[in-house]
Amino acid sequence: MCRWMAYQGDPVYLESLLFKQEHSLIHQSLSARKSEVTVNADGFGLGWYDEREEPGLYHEVLPAWSDSNLKSLARHIKSGLFFAHVRSSTGTETNRSNCHPFSYKNWLFMHNGQIGGYESLRWQLDRLIPEHLYSHRHGATDSEVIFLLMIANGLETNPEYAIEITLSQILDMMKQKNIKDPLRFTAVFQTEKKSPRFAFPVMNWHQAYTASNSPSTL
Amino acid sequence: MCRWMAYQGDPVYLESLLFKQEHSLIHQSLSARKSEVTVNADGFGLGWYDEREEPGLYHEVLPAWSDSNLKSLARHIKSGLFFAHVRSSTGTETNRSNCHPFSYKNWLFMHNGQIGGYESLRWQLDRLIPEHLYSHRHGATDSEVIFLLMIANGLETNPEYAIEITLSQILDMMKQKNIKDPLRFTAVFQTEKKSPRFAFPVMNWHQAYTASNSPSTL
Amino acid sequence: MCRWMAYQGDPVYLESLLFKQEHSLIHQSLSARKSEVTVNADGFGLGWYDEREEPGLYHEVLPAWSDSNLKSLARHIKSGLFFAHVRSSTGTETNRSNCHPFSYKNWLFMHNGQIGGYESLRWQLDRLIPEHLYSHRHGATDSEVIFLLMIANGLETNPEYAIEITLSQILDMMKQKNIKDPLRFTAVFQTEKKSPRFAFPVMNWHQAYTASNSPSTL
Amino acid sequence: MCRWMAYQGDPVYLESLLFKQEHSLIHQSLSARKSEVTVNADGFGLGWYDEREEPGLYHEVLPAWSDSNLKSLARHIKSGLFFAHVRSSTGTETNRSNCHPFSYKNWLFMHNGQIGGYESLRWQLDRLIPEHLYSHRHGATDSEVIFLLMIANGLETNPEYAIEITLSQILDMMKQKNIKDPLRFTAVFQTEKKSPRFAFPVMNWHQAYTASNSPSTL
Repeated sequence: MCRWMAYQGDPVYLESLLFKQEHSLIHQSLSARKSEVTVNADGFGLGWYDEREEPGLYHEVLPAWSDSNLKSLARHIKSGLFFAHVRSSTGTETNRSNCHPFSYKNWLFMHNGQIGGYESLRWQLDRLIPEHLYSHRHGATDSEVIFLLMIANGLETNPEYAIEITLSQILDMMKQKNIKDPLRFTAVFQTEKKSPRFAFPVMNWHQAYTASNSPSTL
Repeated sequence: MCRWMAYQGDPVYLESLLFKQEHSLIHQSLSARKSEVTVNADGFGLGWYDEREEPGLYHEVLPAWSDSNLKSLARHIKSGLFFAHVRSSTGTETNRSNCHPFSYKNWLFMHNGQIGGYESLRWQLDRLIPEHLYSHRHGATDSEVIFLLMIANGLETNPEYAIEITLSQILDMMKQKNIKDPLRFTAVFQTEKKSPRFAFPVMNWHQAYTASNSPSTL
Repeated sequence: MCRWMAYQGDPVYLESLLFKQEHSLIHQSLSARKSEVTVNADGFGLGWYDEREEPGLYHEVLPAWSDSNLKSLARHIKSGLFFAHVRSSTGTETNRSNCHPFSYKNWLFMHNGQIGGYESLRWQLDRLIPEHLYSHRHGATDSEVIFLLMIANGLETNPEYAIEITLSQILDMMKQKNIKDPLRFTAVFQTEKKSPRFAFPVMNWHQAYTASNSPSTL
Repeated sequence: MCRWMAYQGDPVYLESLLFKQEHSLIHQSLSARKSEVTVNADGFGLGWYDEREEPGLYHEVLPAWSDSNLKSLARHIKSGLFFAHVRSSTGTETNRSNCHPFSYKNWLFMHNGQIGGYESLRWQLDRLIPEHLYSHRHGATDSEVIFLLMIANGLETNPEYAIEITLSQILDMMKQKNIKDPLRFTAVFQTEKKSPRFAFPVMNWHQAYTASNSPSTL
């Protein structure tokens, strides 16, 4: 599973949270590397808001702990609202296009989880992406397709509905293919600084799915 | 435009053709780098046949002239049938998934050219890929989708027909979108060592397209 | 030869100079790639000053025109004093440690040129680096060793002298080895924002060396 | 600590040992990634002998489990004598120049261990490398400098002596700097196929050093 962090508050240098905290994300990755827990070495990503409307993005496939660019950027980029994500691939290739966070206009999205049986559903899922969003399909991850489908389903105007309907579509597909593995979905969505923002800090679909196979418990 | 080479003959170390010839591919890239012609620095690829049925593959995004792995591999890999390709991107991202040659079972494919207006056609083109081939859609290039559509159209049993019908499909799509840029297509197809093999050393669609908008002049 | 730019003035987003000018550095690299001039594809680097004392650094081995991180960083990083450098290697490996600009404390350095016969002098040159500076020898370029020797020779307190004496040391070494190729040296040095700064926009050693073999014409 | 394997026997495809064994190196890395042990994600390397005198080399900074080139190379390269090494950095940068195995002429070397206090000794150690070997100093690791010093001390003609004297030199240096951390050294040396070969499968210096501070117990 992936790890992530999201920060909102007074503007700080990214390093203060990425590197300097005892339980910082990089520190955790490094601990993971040294000891008893899952290591996250399949790509790293940052997304941050500043004076620009759309967020800044930085994606890298080197392990976060050995990326000299990340060290310098985190010392020099200051933000009051940023995401960081360390990827532990669930199967898709390690390249920058597959690193979180994903962005669309002034939105950022990152995801921890997995669509059960994704490889057998990718064809169907990609076909649900409408033409006007297809140029935003840069990589091949389940996370990116979930994000694009949520946008297609109205994330910008009615996010609760868009999320519910998208997860429901995916669960239906999984049901048709008789996939037993769960849909795991914990995600953070973000629009820019001055707009209302919201997040679903923990929304694991496992229970919902195995219990009722329906998203109504959302 | 990309550059490539294809070799068939007595088994040789790849370096004898990649590095040691005066007009070798790497030498050309390096010349390109130094002087008057297009440089090819958006990825490199090798595909070679040996005792295995399916070809070996090596893709790298570093410029070919500065890839130490390539130097050593070319000194140690011997083949009587291999492809090398230096990419000059026509727009798609530089990552390994977008490097030629592409492979499918015991087939190799590499392509020099471009689908005019590709970005506006990608959605439609990807939807033509049948479900059973979709797991072979690793990247986002026009070249890869052309190859997969040719396989879908029977490349393995009737290659001439598969190529003709695929190019015709693409040209129709371009016509519907009123795309003025040509479809440029020069490609090499290859099956493994002991099977019959064939190639279309030069098949530029420009003439055909602007003249008759039909593949009948193939 | 490498290309570079240095900017000092009102704070601007880096993209305004890196990407948006008709003759921007990236535009030049891309032109180089397409046509009649040397291409620069052996690494890219940025160094910029902001509120921190020491400069920010970003080094990448991908060609600048296909680096998605660079595009986003240049849209979000604002500076009134920054360097950008596109490398065309004179022999040393393409990796991040060999990309300009180099930094030391609050100094930035970038260099266009070459020590003639460098490979045969590297052993001697590295031995001149004093112990306390050796942890700053990250890569293997002639540029980095020149910078470290200038620091050793007092760059921080008497830069003119440090530069002169260092170039003189190197020329002596070249003389002893009877190296005919010139020492080419065009460089920019920079300390942080509020301090005095200076540069040697063009200081090609070729003339000096072939004429008098002495740095007295500096 | 790093992990490695060395194989000598009937020629086999590398994948049969790298990927297909239950306890293969890649499998171990992947297990490490998933669970309770140190993960090795700071670079990977292969060295293999074939008909050429000098070994083939492949170094990559991507985690071994997500390197598509490695998968294909391991399916196509056959050898009766090869090394594989997964690096877990003890501090030096993650780049290809720092990946094992290292080679010199027809020799291969890989190392698991660490020179205690290496960063404070690097200056002195590098100065021991004789001029004629300095062009083989590609990276910055302690492993590479150990290998070059052993060559300088006669590895090619009297390996036992060269190893002993080199470790002794390093221990003396550590003593002078009053370094408490041990010198850990487990290494494999190899010359080409048809020559006599030897290895030190386990030679941990910890005991020797803490016990007697002398290499006499070798």
